[in-house]
Amino acid sequence: MAEADLSFPLFHQQPRPGWQTVKDERLFANPHISVDRVEVLTPHRSQQPVPWLVVKRKAAVAIAPVTASGDFVMIPQERIPVAQECLEFPAGQIDCAVEDVTCQTVIDTALRELAEETGYALAPGGRLEPLGWFLPSQGFTDEHVYLFKAEPVGVVSQPSPDGNEHISPARLVSPGELRRRIAASEITTALTLALYARMAAKGSI
Amino acid sequence: MAEADLSFPLFHQQPRPGWQTVKDERLFANPHISVDRVEVLTPHRSQQPVPWLVVKRKAAVAIAPVTASGDFVMIPQERIPVAQECLEFPAGQIDCAVEDVTCQTVIDTALRELAEETGYALAPGGRLEPLGWFLPSQGFTDEHVYLFKAEPVGVVSQPSPDGNEHISPARLVSPGELRRRIAASEITTALTLALYARMAAKGSI
Repeated sequence: MAEADLSFPLFHQQPRPGWQTVKDERLFANPHISVDRVEVLTPHRSQQPVPWLVVKRKAAVAIAPVTASGDFVMIPQERIPVAQECLEFPAGQIDCAVEDVTCQTVIDTALRELAEETGYALAPGGRLEPLGWFLPSQGFTDEHVYLFKAEPVGVVSQPSPDGNEHISPARLVSPGELRRRIAASEITTALTLALYARMAAKGSI
Repeated sequence: MAEADLSFPLFHQQPRPGWQTVKDERLFANPHISVDRVEVLTPHRSQQPVPWLVVKRKAAVAIAPVTASGDFVMIPQERIPVAQECLEFPAGQIDCAVEDVTCQTVIDTALRELAEETGYALAPGGRLEPLGWFLPSQGFTDEHVYLFKAEPVGVVSQPSPDGNEHISPARLVSPGELRRRIAASEITTALTLALYARMAAKGSI
């Protein structure tokens, strides 16, 4: 696969000089999350550990798919925690421990979620462009989400989302419609806004 | 106060026809979060409740402060869950139950966090512009963050962050520098990217 050579910085491999966890007490855990009470030394607080509550979660990916005609592929998805259907870019969790994530597992997850949630895939010669990562709620959770633009994409299959998810058929959204819906606060998910911010800042939308 | 008349939609008051929680089992709780196993009927799944794990958290606000000369006011803040110092816009939690949040508590929190974290405040005649809300991680938590632009702001006091936080002195960041840092993936927090996305989509940056 053309993407096998793609490499990009990984969140968990960033140098963190001066950061040291001196205590980590697990208060709750299940297959989705853990809740830990940690005590941490930091660059600005190197003498007295800082106590904090951290909800730990797997890393994730989110993808902005663009068709050959320049439209974005978006999905309306029912989101239980916020009791809303959100129009958003496809995304999903990387199904391994954070410390085991590699560029290849990130890419594989991105391409799989794109196909499963939308039925689209990179066209021959298409490109997956890394757009860094973002931190959904950095005071609360270690969750981090890798961002990509996939261009061009085309329909290859029927979507096949996970059993517990409800995703309506993908919609094509022009750059102008995406901008209008963000300006009108109709698009609200961090992953979609983060992808838009990166693309807008790079001048590619 | 001039802002007393400001009104905007509230997340928890949105109509949610077809959404009904039929079971809510609390698995863990402390003053910061709760972890609930819920079963929910949704518009597309009205017969068989969907089981889901939801981490519940207070609502929050984030503010993009702009000086009279057009620079953004940003703060470097040590963020324990991600073991990094993040350059971000000021933000904070609304200190009441989600269902008790009003426009006034949102505004009060925004103005207080702006002052406490940066030492800046709205100048006389300044305007707090609501920019909707965003959802940090809609598959995982009910957290929602109200967004504002505050313009113009000026220095009024010394910052006084919470005891457990470490915030370095505020920095002035030009729109061009903000754009470059987002494009270079140096700015990573959802609240900052969400504010940038809304401002960019509205053509105000």
